[in-house]
Amino acid sequence: MKMFEGSSVANARRKIMDRFSSFRLGSELVEIYHSADRVLAEDVLSKNNVPHFRRSTVDGYAVLAKDTYGASESLPAFLDIVGEVYMGKGAEIDIVENQAVYVPTGGMLPEGADAVIMVEYTEMLDKESLAVMGSVTVKENVVDIGDDIFENETVLTKGQVLRPQDIGVLASVGLGRVKIYKKPSIAIISTGDEIVGTNEEVNLGQIRDINTYTLTIMAEQLGCAVTKKTVVRDEFELLQKELKGSLKNSDIVIISGGSSVGIKDITRAVIESVDKSEVFIHGLAIKPGKPTIIAKVDNSLVLGLPGQPVSAMIVFKVMVDYFVKYIQSIEKEIEYGIEAELSTNIHSAQGKETYQMVTVEKTADGYLATPIYGKSGMITLLSRAKGYIVIDMNKEGVLKGEKVTVYAF
Amino acid sequence: MKMFEGSSVANARRKIMDRFSSFRLGSELVEIYHSADRVLAEDVLSKNNVPHFRRSTVDGYAVLAKDTYGASESLPAFLDIVGEVYMGKGAEIDIVENQAVYVPTGGMLPEGADAVIMVEYTEMLDKESLAVMGSVTVKENVVDIGDDIFENETVLTKGQVLRPQDIGVLASVGLGRVKIYKKPSIAIISTGDEIVGTNEEVNLGQIRDINTYTLTIMAEQLGCAVTKKTVVRDEFELLQKELKGSLKNSDIVIISGGSSVGIKDITRAVIESVDKSEVFIHGLAIKPGKPTIIAKVDNSLVLGLPGQPVSAMIVFKVMVDYFVKYIQSIEKEIEYGIEAELSTNIHSAQGKETYQMVTVEKTADGYLATPIYGKSGMITLLSRAKGYIVIDMNKEGVLKGEKVTVYAF
Repeated sequence: MKMFEGSSVANARRKIMDRFSSFRLGSELVEIYHSADRVLAEDVLSKNNVPHFRRSTVDGYAVLAKDTYGASESLPAFLDIVGEVYMGKGAEIDIVENQAVYVPTGGMLPEGADAVIMVEYTEMLDKESLAVMGSVTVKENVVDIGDDIFENETVLTKGQVLRPQDIGVLASVGLGRVKIYKKPSIAIISTGDEIVGTNEEVNLGQIRDINTYTLTIMAEQLGCAVTKKTVVRDEFELLQKELKGSLKNSDIVIISGGSSVGIKDITRAVIESVDKSEVFIHGLAIKPGKPTIIAKVDNSLVLGLPGQPVSAMIVFKVMVDYFVKYIQSIEKEIEYGIEAELSTNIHSAQGKETYQMVTVEKTADGYLATPIYGKSGMITLLSRAKGYIVIDMNKEGVLKGEKVTVYAF
Repeated sequence: MKMFEGSSVANARRKIMDRFSSFRLGSELVEIYHSADRVLAEDVLSKNNVPHFRRSTVDGYAVLAKDTYGASESLPAFLDIVGEVYMGKGAEIDIVENQAVYVPTGGMLPEGADAVIMVEYTEMLDKESLAVMGSVTVKENVVDIGDDIFENETVLTKGQVLRPQDIGVLASVGLGRVKIYKKPSIAIISTGDEIVGTNEEVNLGQIRDINTYTLTIMAEQLGCAVTKKTVVRDEFELLQKELKGSLKNSDIVIISGGSSVGIKDITRAVIESVDKSEVFIHGLAIKPGKPTIIAKVDNSLVLGLPGQPVSAMIVFKVMVDYFVKYIQSIEKEIEYGIEAELSTNIHSAQGKETYQMVTVEKTADGYLATPIYGKSGMITLLSRAKGYIVIDMNKEGVLKGEKVTVYAF
C-alpha cells in the first residue's frame, strides 16, 4: 500500500456532509429539567403571551398617567385610593379618572389604569386619599401583555443547545417537556497488542490504555451516549467482530490505533471487510493526526484514529465534534477563545492544518501564549496545555508577537 | 428599613473568603471514568515512569547510533539483523556493535541499542543482513524511560478541574481511582405568592416559575448536587421551615425573591431568625442584581437573590460560581471570551458593576457586539443574548467602536 495523501479538514467535512445529508437522528420528549445542554429537535412556539396580564415593575399606585401630569412636591395631585391588588391575584377593581389602586412589584394592573407611580413619589393622606408628587407617562413602570413573549412567537429554534435561560423560557411559557434529539450513540474501540487496562499488571513492552478513557469522556462531554468501550488486540477477526457488533447500535464507531499504512495496521482492511462500507478519507492534512481513516458503513460514521493519544484526541475534536453538531442541526457556533500574543516563533508545515498546544499566562497588558512540545505519544503534552491554536494550512508558521486565539482543550 | 447601600462584588467576595476560610468540603474516591469535570482534592504523584521502558517512535531498526554515522545511499553501513521485537513484549535480545533488531512503532528497545533508524532508510539484504542508508544520532526516534512522566512527579494538582486529557494522565500512570471533592450541596428555594409550576393552571395575576429551573440547572452545570428545589409562598413560617430543613444537608441555600427591603420582602428577616446566622451583605453594587443578601448560617452560605430571573441568574453566576470554586481550591481560571467591537454606545451607572447582555455577529474583520435591553424580569433578555460584557464600576459606559470581551452566558 502506498503512502497516502492528506485530505484537508474542510474537504473531509464536506465529504461527511455529502454522505450523511439524509442521516436522521431520532428525537425524544423529555422533562425540561433533563434538557440542559441537549439540542432542540424542533422550533418552539409559545402558546400564550408572557406576561398574560399587565404587571407593575415597582411597588406603587396604578393610575391614569394623565392624572399625574404636572404633579410635583410643591403641587401634588390628589387621587382617591379605591383598593389594593394582591400578589398572585387578579385585579378585581377597575379604576377611572382620579382613582388609584396600590400594586406591588409584579402585581396585576387594574383595568383603566395605564401607568404606575412609585410609592416613593406618593403620600397616603388617609386610607382613601393619596397625594401624588410626581408624574408618570403612559405605560411607565408597566410590563405589557406579551412584552416578553407573544402568543405564537417562535421562542427557541431547532438546533439550539439548551442553556439554563432557554429552559427558563420553556418554563415561562408553561412547557414542562421538550422535544430534543436523542444522544448520538458511539462505540469506542482501542486496538493494540501492547495496551493493558488500569487494573491490570503492566509488563515490559506494555503500556496502559489511555484512549479508551480520553475518547469516552470526550464523547460524553460532547453529548453522546457511549454504547461500548473496549480494548482489543490487533487481530483482524477480533476487531471485525467488535466493529460489526458496534455497528448494530451506534451512530458512530471510533477505532483508535492501526490506522496508518504499515503491515500491522489492519483498521482500514477491517472497515472495508464489512458490508456497505465506503472508506472516503485515508489521511488527513492535519498535524498531529495524519493517519486518519473516515468511512461510512451502512448508516454509521466509522473513524480510524491514530493510536497516539494526543493525535486521537485532536482528530476526535476536529471530526467527531463536527459530525455530532451536523446531525443535530447545530449552527456553526462562535467559538470562545483567549486572544494572546505569541511568545516565540512557531514553525508549521505548509499543506497541513497544525494544532499547536500552548500554555497561557496573564501579563500586564493581556495574555502570552507559549507553545509546548513533546515527543510523539506524550499525554502530558495535553495535560500541561491550557489550549491550542490552529495554524492555517497555507501558512508556514506564526511569528513571535503575532496575535493568536487560544481555544480550550 | 432604610434603602441599603451596595457592596462591591470584590468586597462581597472578600467577605465570603474571610468567613469561609475554614470551610472544608469533603472528598471522595471515584473511578476515573466518573471524575470528568470534577475537582482534584489532592495532588497526584506518579508511582512509576511513563514510559517505563524505552520505546521506538517509528517502525525501524534498533541500533547503536555510532554504527550509522556517515552512512548514506552511496555508502551504506552493513549491520547484522539479530532478531525482532514484538508489540507488547519485552525485548529479549541485547545488541552489541554492528547489530540491529527490528522494532515496531511503540515497541521496546533492546538493551545496548541507543537509537532507531526508520525502516525507510534501510534495506534488508537477507534475513540476517541490513544495509543502512542514513544516520541517526543517540536517542533519535526513541522515547526514553520517564520522558512523559517521571516516577514521583506531581502530574496533577489539587484544585484542578479534570479534563479528558488529565484523566488520560491518570490512566497512563495506572490510577483507576482518584480523590475528588464531593459535589457542593445546594438547595434552591423560590418564593412568591404569584408563582405557579409548569404543570399547574396559571390564572390572572400569576406567573410561571422560572427561577427554580434556571438556578437548579446552573447549579448542576457548576457541579453542585441539588438537595432540594421548591417554590414556597411569601410566608415567614413556611420560608423559615424550608430554610431550616435545607440547612441540615446543604452547603449552599439559595432563596430567590423577597430579597429587597419592602414590607413583603421577608427573606432577610427569615435568614436572621435562624440560629448562628450572620447577614454580612445586603445590597450588591451590581446591575442588575442590587437587592442581594449574603449570609453565613452555621456553616452554610445562604443567598437571597432578586426574584427577577435575569438578576437572579447574574448574581448566581457572580457569587455562587465564586464560592463553589473557592471551596474546591480552584485557582482563578483564565476566562474564555470573544473579542468584539461594540456597535453602539452603552451607558452604565458609575459605582455599579454592570452586566450587559449582548448579541454577537461575525463581520468581515472580526466580531460585532450589540447590547440588548429589556424591561425588568424578561427572561428573553437572556435567551436572545449570546453572552455578556462587564462594565467596570468606575466607568460610566463603553463607547461605540471600543473593544470588549464577550463572555458566554
